[in-house]
Parts: sequence; C-alpha cells; structure tokens
Amino acid sequence: MNVMPLSSSVVHTLHIELADRSYPILVGDALLDQLQTWESLPSATQAVIVTNQTVAPLYLERLRTVLSQRFPKVQVVVLPDGEVYKNWETLQTIFDALLQHACDRKTLMFALGGGVVGDMTGFAAACYMRGVPFVQVPTTLLAQVDSSVGGKTGINHPLGKNMIGAFYQPVQVVCDLSTLQTLPDREFSAGLAEVIKYGPIYDLDFLAWIDHHMDDLMQREPEALAVAVRRSCEIKAAVVSADERESGLRAILNFGHTFGHAIEAGMGYGAWLHGEAVGCGMIMAARLSHAMGMLHADRVTALHALIQRAGLPTVAPRLSEGRDNAAAYLSHMRVDKKAEAGAIRFVLIDDAGQAHLKSAPDSLVAEVIEASSI
Amino acid sequence: MNVMPLSSSVVHTLHIELADRSYPILVGDALLDQLQTWESLPSATQAVIVTNQTVAPLYLERLRTVLSQRFPKVQVVVLPDGEVYKNWETLQTIFDALLQHACDRKTLMFALGGGVVGDMTGFAAACYMRGVPFVQVPTTLLAQVDSSVGGKTGINHPLGKNMIGAFYQPVQVVCDLSTLQTLPDREFSAGLAEVIKYGPIYDLDFLAWIDHHMDDLMQREPEALAVAVRRSCEIKAAVVSADERESGLRAILNFGHTFGHAIEAGMGYGAWLHGEAVGCGMIMAARLSHAMGMLHADRVTALHALIQRAGLPTVAPRLSEGRDNAAAYLSHMRVDKKAEAGAIRFVLIDDAGQAHLKSAPDSLVAEVIEASSI
Repeated sequence: MNVMPLSSSVVHTLHIELADRSYPILVGDALLDQLQTWESLPSATQAVIVTNQTVAPLYLERLRTVLSQRFPKVQVVVLPDGEVYKNWETLQTIFDALLQHACDRKTLMFALGGGVVGDMTGFAAACYMRGVPFVQVPTTLLAQVDSSVGGKTGINHPLGKNMIGAFYQPVQVVCDLSTLQTLPDREFSAGLAEVIKYGPIYDLDFLAWIDHHMDDLMQREPEALAVAVRRSCEIKAAVVSADERESGLRAILNFGHTFGHAIEAGMGYGAWLHGEAVGCGMIMAARLSHAMGMLHADRVTALHALIQRAGLPTVAPRLSEGRDNAAAYLSHMRVDKKAEAGAIRFVLIDDAGQAHLKSAPDSLVAEVIEASSI
Repeated sequence: MNVMPLSSSVVHTLHIELADRSYPILVGDALLDQLQTWESLPSATQAVIVTNQTVAPLYLERLRTVLSQRFPKVQVVVLPDGEVYKNWETLQTIFDALLQHACDRKTLMFALGGGVVGDMTGFAAACYMRGVPFVQVPTTLLAQVDSSVGGKTGINHPLGKNMIGAFYQPVQVVCDLSTLQTLPDREFSAGLAEVIKYGPIYDLDFLAWIDHHMDDLMQREPEALAVAVRRSCEIKAAVVSADERESGLRAILNFGHTFGHAIEAGMGYGAWLHGEAVGCGMIMAARLSHAMGMLHADRVTALHALIQRAGLPTVAPRLSEGRDNAAAYLSHMRVDKKAEAGAIRFVLIDDAGQAHLKSAPDSLVAEVIEASSI
C-alpha cells in the first residue's frame, strides 16, 4: 500500500459509486463544527438529528449549532444507548417525532453516534414516507470504518439480529476523527477488529501497515487514525460500489462474522461487543482456512497476535458443555441471515490476500471451534 | 383508444420497465390455478402466502395447491381483515412467521388479497433480511388496477396513513379477473373509482370507453372487466416506468387523492372506503380545475355523472360545522404525505385530458369544498 501521510487538518473525500445513489465520505479532523462540511447537502425545511444518551452530551450541541445555520429548523431525537434498544419500539419513537414535527418528504435526517444509531436512523429514513434523505455522522471507530458506509440499515427482531431492515444509502458520510478520542477503550478495540478485517480479505500491504502501526493506533495517534479510517473506507467503498446488495463480492466483508455471529447469539447480544466477536471470529475463520489447506499456519499465528495487540479477546467462549459446544456454534451459524437453505457459507482467506465464499465439512468446523476455545 | 375485444381465456402480459426491477403483469381469467402462471418465478425453498380471513376461504387452498407443485414448502400467514390492522403489530406477525419457519433470503412471498394485504406483504418483503422477492396476487378491483402495481408498500402510523413504507417492486403481478366476481358491490364500486381516474388524467378515449361500458362493468361482464383492468394497468405501468419514486409524473396518479385523503382522515379511516373517498375527491378536484379556469363545466358534470353511475358517493361529507368545514379539509390536506413545507399541491385536469400539479388559493379551495358538500 502506498500510504501518503495525512496532515490532520486535511479533509479527505472518498466516493461510493452507485449511479444515482452515489455519495461522498468525508474523513478529517474537527469536521463536525465546520459549516463547509454540510455545504453540499440538499436543502430542507427541517433537519432532524438522531443520537443517543451517551453521545448527546459530547457532540449534540456542536452539531445542532452548525446545522442551525444551514436549516430553518433543527429537531432532535435522543434514543437510549445500547444494542438492546435496536428494536421496533425505539424506531417508533423516531417516527413519532418526525410526525409530531410535521416533517415532510424532504426532511434531512442525521445519525450522530455509533452503529446502532446509524442503523436505526438509516432504517427510519428508508421507511418514513417511503424514504427521506439521511446523513451518517459516525462517532465510533466501528461505525466510521464499517457500519456507516454501504447502506445496510435495520433493527433486531427477538428471533434474530438485523433481521428487519433495508439497503438504503445515505447522502453523505462524515467521519470526524476527533470524535474517536472520547471513545471508551473497549469500543475502540472493537472498532480495530473491523479495520484489521480489511487486510486479509483485500489488501495485505494494509495489513502490514496496521501491524507496523498498531502501537500508534492504540495510542489514537491522529495521523495513524486518519490513514486507518481512510483506507478502510476506501476498501469498503470499492467493495460496496461493485456489489451494493451483497449478491457476491460484498459477502467478503463478512470475514469473521459467521463465527462472530454465533458468539454474539450464543452469549446473548451485548455480552460481547460486535467487534470483539468479529475479532475472535476472524481467528476462527483463519484457522478454518488453514484446515481447508488455503492458508499457511504462520498467517494464522500473525493474525492472532495482531488481534491480541488490538486489545481484543482471542479465546472463543464455550457456548455449551463438552461436545455440545461445537453443536451450539453450528446451530447458531445455520440460522444466520447469510445462510441459505441451511448451508453455512464461510468467508475464508488465502495466502495471496484474497477471500473466498465456501462451505466446509461440519467435522472440520467443529475441530476449529474446539481448538479455538482453549 | 383502440380497444381490442379480449376473449376471456386470453392471458395478457404487460411490463413495468424499471431496469433490473422490471416485472410482468399478467391479466386474465382463472390464472390462479394454472401452474404456468407461476412458471417464470425464481426458484426458492419456501413460498409464503400472506392473505386475510376474508380471502382465505375463497382462494387460499387453490393457490396453495398449485404452488405446492412448484416449491418444496408452502407456508401460510392469515391476517385479520381491514385497514385498522394495517399496522406494525400485524406486520410483526408476518416477520414472526418468516423467522419461525427459518425462511432465508430467497424465500418468495405471495400477497393474496386486496390493497391492505398487498401493501403489508410488500413492506414485509422489503424489510425481511433487507429484502426478499414477492408476488402480488390482487383479488380486488382496486388492488388489480392500482395498488398492486408500482411498488408502493407500507403500513399506517397512528398519526398518518401509509407514513411508514418503502418503494419495493414485486417480481410479478397476477390479476386473476375471476376473483372479481366474489367482490362485495361496495368494494367493486370503490375499485371503479380508480379505473375512472385513468381517463381524465391520461386517456380521454378510455374515459369515453368507460362511459359507454359502465353498465357492462357494473354487471361485471368478463370482457369489459378484462379491458378495464388491462388498460388501467397499461397506463399505470407507463406512468410508473417513467417515474418510479413519484418525483414528477407519477404524482398525477393522485388525482382526487388530496381531497380524498381529507375525507378519509376527517371521517376516520374505514368510514369511507379509499376508492369512495377518491371518487368524491375527483369530483372536487374537477370542480377546482374548473374554478382555476382549466376545465369546462360540462366535463365536471360528465365526471360527476359517471362516478354516480359507478355506485359511488358524490356529496362530500362535512368534517366540521359551518365555516370550520373548509378549514378542517384544508388542515387535513396540509399534513398529507404529498404536501411539502405546508403547501398543498393538487392534481388538476384540463380539457385535453392532461393532469397538472398545482397549488390553488385557499379561498378557491374552500369554495369548492362548500359547493361539494351540498
């Protein structure tokens, strides 16, 4: 990878190319407060900021102040914080607010927060009057490098995560790197899992860069953050531009997510952060890639070490006693949204830095699960 | 209009042209039971028929039987009948069933019923796992000529009708004309309102044909029904193909709907059928067109007479006492989904059979409302 050092005052603009649904991703420091960040947005009578109780005290007033210079009315909806609130009841509070404020079809919505706020605001925007425009303003590393880009929106159903949703693209994504400085360590590490993910599936040079700069990243050194977020968004943008609705290539972004899904579902959502489950899931997927004869053992070891240095858990939790453990994993993976007609498709990686969608024998998967949980 | 007489055994196929979301509309008699009707559908492990308690005893077993020859598993969801159930709680029962049956992303859904079933099934299909394919099998005249074609899906919110939804196209629409024979008279008339609508906004020859064949239509004479449904779908297909998301031309399909919306909202949803409110609303919109100097008085009189012959109410209900009546109408129209920044945009018609999107002075609108309610 040819990485240009970024001055922290530089704004970098990337583009998601999706015909009439194309949009820019802005990456830079202190973007939130600058009027020019919001200059190219469509005009609207009302802007509606959706955020949560944790993010509101930190950034809401700053965003509201600057948007008030741009839109006649700025409304605010503050949601409770947490994955357990990513449901219909909370979504309904957004719809209630939109209707109470008589928001019309041109109302511009802003998702200020992490992945949950982004997913719910995006889904609300997709459904309100059959679609109003929205802007992603991700304030977590995970949301900046993954969930805010690509148009996946939705809520959880009691029987499954993200089961109800829409592919609905924002009109702009604004990654203000300064907001990452207030992120709790555990969430920061969880975000790093998704940054690391882009290496083995798409860009081994980027993987080497991450390995080289892991200490800087853990220190939240602004220039390292700028490179990591920018390159992650670049890769995500390239993949999503090629396959918006996950009919092919886009599935490689789920590296680590099949095992990760089983960890999240098996432990109860919220016990492990999504990024933590994905980090551990990537080690398991790498081991399976090795067991399938696709990946050298050294690569597995190196990925394991990198995930550990990112402050992430590396031992797969036991979902059940003894032999039932592997069965529990397999059962959760079979009801994953990505499974079709009961077949589990894994994202596996090879030594050339390419990802492949493959199924694997249950016995081999079970061995990997057992080897990963000790 | 050059109308070819249709033998009732002929299947007519129209096409909605929307790039990768194009789909056929089949119009014909006894299509439901024929395996070839369903031949070109994508393959799936499971088909899910969504219907309601009124339609199920009439057509469910026939559809289930034929689909069982085509799909390994056919599941059924029976909803309560009525607009009051077009809400999140009922939608949730569809999601529950999909998840309980472990339906995957390729599951094919079938909406068997009228507009409510079609809107809810379509919205469920749009949201389940961010989108599964669905088929419209409309069994009411209104659904065949209007709501099943064009991809508008959604549910009501306590604060507004169809406020939550998606533009989501079916993969096929099957208008089985035989099902119209079991429709209650009142619902049949309500459907005729939407048939009549296509005349003044798009095709004066078709309007003349309807006028000439109104008695046949009221007798539900199969060949007249075939022509009416086919031509209505042709016009709707042409308009939707040109403007999927109602950014321009498509708005003309809302002729009569702005006044109609006020009637429905003001009387309480369900008091007037949608088609009844639209029928009366078309008379009001024609009067407003005349008051704006766009339409000859004879045209207003002729449209009034036609709507009366279709068995539809022609006197606008009073939504409030005395002068407050017009104010009540205006207030409901201002919160309509089609209003923007509080401005009411009416679909008005001219003598050449063209529709125009225009605002009008409140005083003129108030006069029309008063003149229509006596």
